[in-house]
Amino acid sequence: MPRLVDHEVRRRQITDAARRVIVRGGLDAATFQAVAAEAGMSVRLVQYYFGTKKEFLLGTLDSVVHAMAARFTVELEGLGAEPEPRVALRTIGRALLPLDDIRRDEAKVLAAYQAARLSGSQSVPAETLDPAALLVRTAAEHIRRVRDDGPDTRAATELDAELFTVLVAGLSQSVLSGFHSTERAAELLDHTVDRVLGSGGG
Amino acid sequence: MPRLVDHEVRRRQITDAARRVIVRGGLDAATFQAVAAEAGMSVRLVQYYFGTKKEFLLGTLDSVVHAMAARFTVELEGLGAEPEPRVALRTIGRALLPLDDIRRDEAKVLAAYQAARLSGSQSVPAETLDPAALLVRTAAEHIRRVRDDGPDTRAATELDAELFTVLVAGLSQSVLSGFHSTERAAELLDHTVDRVLGSGGG
Repeated sequence: MPRLVDHEVRRRQITDAARRVIVRGGLDAATFQAVAAEAGMSVRLVQYYFGTKKEFLLGTLDSVVHAMAARFTVELEGLGAEPEPRVALRTIGRALLPLDDIRRDEAKVLAAYQAARLSGSQSVPAETLDPAALLVRTAAEHIRRVRDDGPDTRAATELDAELFTVLVAGLSQSVLSGFHSTERAAELLDHTVDRVLGSGGG
Repeated sequence: MPRLVDHEVRRRQITDAARRVIVRGGLDAATFQAVAAEAGMSVRLVQYYFGTKKEFLLGTLDSVVHAMAARFTVELEGLGAEPEPRVALRTIGRALLPLDDIRRDEAKVLAAYQAARLSGSQSVPAETLDPAALLVRTAAEHIRRVRDDGPDTRAATELDAELFTVLVAGLSQSVLSGFHSTERAAELLDHTVDRVLGSGGG
C-alpha cells in the first residue's frame, strides 16, 4: 500500500508513463495494463491513484498542459513585468509548437486527445477544451495592452486571440505531419503575430 | 465480373461507402470487409477496384478532396473572372469549413487521415499532404492580385497563404471538437482574411 510514498511523485510517475505510451500508440494504447507495465507498477496501484479511465485521461492531459503552461510562464517572466505583446506572443507560440523532442512529444499527446475526441473512439472529457480557452485568454491579455479600449477593439482582440490560438494548434499538427519544417513554423508564427498586431503595434 | 458496369460508378460507390465507414469509426474501421459490407458488394469486388489498402485509402481521400475542391471551384466561378481576393478567400474558406452536415462529414474524414498520420496507426501515403499544398497555391494566387510584385511581397504572400491554410485546417478541427460554433468559425474566417489582406486590400 502506498502510504509511505509521496502521492504527487507516484502520480507523476504514472502520468509520465502514460504520456510515453500515448506518444507511441495513441490514446487507444493507454490502458491501465499498458501504463502500469510502462511505469513498472501493478495495475492495482495505478487504479489506486486514478480510479476511473476518465480521471486517468484527465490527469495525464493535465500533466502535459501544466508542463506547457509552466514553460511559457517561466519564459514570459524572463521578459519582465510588461513584455512587448509581439515578443510575448512569439514566446508563447514557441513554447507550444513542437520545435524540439520534448515539445514534439507533448504535441503528439495533445493530438492524440484531439483525434480521440473527433473520432469518438474514446470518451474524452469536455474539460480537455479548457487549455484552448486558457490560451485565448492569455493571448488576449497581451494583445489588449497595445490597443485603445472600446467595444470594437474588444471584439477584434477576442478574434485575434482566437486566430492566434487556432493557428498555433493547426501549425503544431502541420509540423507533426511533416508539412511544415520547424524553421518554417517559427517563421509563420512570427508572421502571424505581425498580422495580428499590425506593423505599428507592440 | 464487373466488365459491363461503369468503372467510375463502381469506384464511387466504394469510396462513398468508405467515407461513411470512416466518419463513423475512423480510419481503423475502414477495412475491405467493412467497406464491402457498407457498399453491399463482395470483398473481392472492392479488391478488384482497389488492389491494395494504400490505393484504397488514397482513392477515398481523393474523392473527398475532389468534392471539396469542386465546391469552391464552382463557387469561385460564380464570382466572375477576377473576384476580389477578400471575397475569394472567404468563399474558399467557407467551402472547406464544416459549416453543414456534408462538409462536416468531409472534415471528419480529413481529420481521420490526419490522426492516422500523426499516430502512425495506419500507413498513410505521403500524397495526403498534397491538398494542403494545393490550398496554399490557390490562396497565394488570390492574395497576389492585390499586391505589388517584389521579393519581399512574394515572401509575405507565401506566408499569408500558409497562414490562411493552417487557420482553415485548425478551425475545421476546432468546430468538429466543439470549441468553435459554426457562426463563430465563419466570423473568425472573415477576420483572418482581413488580417491577411489588410484593411486596404482586395
